Amino acid sequence: MASVAPEVEKKEEEEQVVNPWEVSAGKGGIDYDKLVDQFGCQRLDAALIDRIARLTGRPPHRFLRRGLFFAHRDLNEILDIYEKGDKFYLYTGRGPSSEALHLGHLVPFMFTKYLQDAFKVPLVIQLTDDEKFLWKNLTVEESKRLARENAKDIIACGFDVERTFIFSDFNFVGGAFYENMVKVARCVTYNKVVGIFGFTPEDHIGKISFPPVQAVPSFPSSFPKHFSGNDQLRCLIPCAIDQDPYFRMTRDVAPRIGYQKPALIESRFFPALQGENTKMSASDPNSAIYVTDSTKDIKTKVNKYAFSGGQDSVELHRKLGANLEVDVSIKYLNFFLEDDDELERIKKAYKEGRMLTGEVKQLLVTVLSEMVERHKRARARVTEEMVDAFMAVRPLPNMFG
Amino acid sequence: MASVAPEVEKKEEEEQVVNPWEVSAGKGGIDYDKLVDQFGCQRLDAALIDRIARLTGRPPHRFLRRGLFFAHRDLNEILDIYEKGDKFYLYTGRGPSSEALHLGHLVPFMFTKYLQDAFKVPLVIQLTDDEKFLWKNLTVEESKRLARENAKDIIACGFDVERTFIFSDFNFVGGAFYENMVKVARCVTYNKVVGIFGFTPEDHIGKISFPPVQAVPSFPSSFPKHFSGNDQLRCLIPCAIDQDPYFRMTRDVAPRIGYQKPALIESRFFPALQGENTKMSASDPNSAIYVTDSTKDIKTKVNKYAFSGGQDSVELHRKLGANLEVDVSIKYLNFFLEDDDELERIKKAYKEGRMLTGEVKQLLVTVLSEMVERHKRARARVTEEMVDAFMAVRPLPNMFG
Repeated sequence: MASVAPEVEKKEEEEQVVNPWEVSAGKGGIDYDKLVDQFGCQRLDAALIDRIARLTGRPPHRFLRRGLFFAHRDLNEILDIYEKGDKFYLYTGRGPSSEALHLGHLVPFMFTKYLQDAFKVPLVIQLTDDEKFLWKNLTVEESKRLARENAKDIIACGFDVERTFIFSDFNFVGGAFYENMVKVARCVTYNKVVGIFGFTPEDHIGKISFPPVQAVPSFPSSFPKHFSGNDQLRCLIPCAIDQDPYFRMTRDVAPRIGYQKPALIESRFFPALQGENTKMSASDPNSAIYVTDSTKDIKTKVNKYAFSGGQDSVELHRKLGANLEVDVSIKYLNFFLEDDDELERIKKAYKEGRMLTGEVKQLLVTVLSEMVERHKRARARVTEEMVDAFMAVRPLPNMFG
Repeated sequence: MASVAPEVEKKEEEEQVVNPWEVSAGKGGIDYDKLVDQFGCQRLDAALIDRIARLTGRPPHRFLRRGLFFAHRDLNEILDIYEKGDKFYLYTGRGPSSEALHLGHLVPFMFTKYLQDAFKVPLVIQLTDDEKFLWKNLTVEESKRLARENAKDIIACGFDVERTFIFSDFNFVGGAFYENMVKVARCVTYNKVVGIFGFTPEDHIGKISFPPVQAVPSFPSSFPKHFSGNDQLRCLIPCAIDQDPYFRMTRDVAPRIGYQKPALIESRFFPALQGENTKMSASDPNSAIYVTDSTKDIKTKVNKYAFSGGQDSVELHRKLGANLEVDVSIKYLNFFLEDDDELERIKKAYKEGRMLTGEVKQLLVTVLSEMVERHKRARARVTEEMVDAFMAVRPLPNMFG
């Protein structure tokens, strides 16, 4: 992705802001290197990716091969545990703020599905309907309905019901989960959450109360019968890097309440059609491809809105080639085109002006349409009973079976 | 109780502070008139007490007759409802911070028992074990154990299991109760809780998250199957006036989330043995009479520590009489001696110097010992099964039967 030369960065007065509710880049795009340093996480390097491939006996996911999941915290320790034949579990989640998911929403779930398959580990998926009630102008009922609708899209990603517990906060908060929320809350001052999340005194206390809710699925004792009855079971969280503040807080608190720190594997952001410096916005359906879009919608959106790195005229393009750094179609193919060789071939031809933007877009439309149609078919097969089965509160030790 | 002449009050620089965690009086004792004005509640006058007596067909409780429950919010409306043959419910609670209750802890429960009997209404009793975990240096397990032990003392006050639901937050928070917590939290800013409760930025977010937990038992929809399925059922809260801040906040929020405001009936504080300007303190067992004290303990404590309004010598006492305003034995008799005529006789004789402090104390020892022994016998009859029955999560509509 675009990187920012130091001199450009210095000229750029605008600070990039990345937190769970705001991602705003400087003019040169998100500076992921700066983010890693600022957050204090580690870079996911080639050696670590090789180790994952070696341990799981399968090629690394394209999100790993292409640096889309690019940062981590304590991933080495999780791999050490796995190598010794010990156990861990996965935790990811979603704030159910909209009816239909867009492709960016699918990224962490696609990756989590790969991790579950590769490591054969249990997974908890938190739907933060309470968060969306607190931040958006929704009713409790609407938040709960969206959580259940989103659960269907998540299930459609192919998770194993025997190893996956999906829960919504409104349906699940209580008991040991609530005890852990209160334990976390006792360790975090108001000043601290202001520093981490940027809350202001005018914010309602619902916002200030929320971070522990997202923290505690990192602790196995928050769940019925504790995974394998082991309070010290390690947790690995795949997520976009904007969620890092929650887990910085969680990792700070964990040892103080006798728990293990969760490990993290963190992704870059999925760009809007208009480019990396714009935001996918629920109020602008043309900023993103949704899993409910028709092939025709996808074609129109890609052709009309996907920001092009190509030149203004065919002649100039043939001569100068495309700027891949800003081309959204290439970015999307980078996420979703599985074949590395084909991707390289396209990038090379496009960069050298032998392929035109229209041709790249046509390929992208095919890739996205196939993926979206596959998702739609899978979602259509998700019954209410299946949702109930994934969301059933049940003892989790069996999930290692 | 002691009242403060305006000129004394003006001289007194120290502001009285009354909130759920701190009660500190000026030198002249708590100024309850000032508190009523400051909090914006109403005085419980003779006409209202007469109306309670008329409607319930029984004499008002001595706590009413003697102005010990002295303030209210919307009690008239509760009586209107009752007069029309409609329904309401009672809500009170306790923060289970100590193993043994002292006499001051019993006061709201004795009064609530009278209200339940007089109005034949359901009652929910909240044990805020989460609050005590958050404010005291306790483990979750110890907080939960204290909640259950305290429940036995509460049950020993004679509540009707068919109409009473006792719950601890750690065991009960979740579902509709949690939904209401989040609804309340969304309506209250950090600035607002700072204004009401005096939190500081160094306070942990557990404290800031707590007020909605104490607020929501005021709303019938927080409980299983909603009392009589009626979300608009009114709630009456008997409590000491230091709890008023929670319910000012609750009453402010209620209409904004479509609920009725809870009504309140509020008591003065029960004084420490050393006098009204000192605090009953868990770290000083000699500051209070506990329900676990033996008759010998009670005799020793009353004789040794109960602050006397009598004169320094018998001769002077016979001549000047006692100052009833500061005499703790008289204050305690005012709470616990049922017979009005006898109380008046004692007060008159003591004031006129015909009774000595020792004689009044002897009477008090008899009254308290009988009461404590009666409580001990009742508590000894409380089995674990009875606790389970009171705390069983169950539909509450039947409670009006």
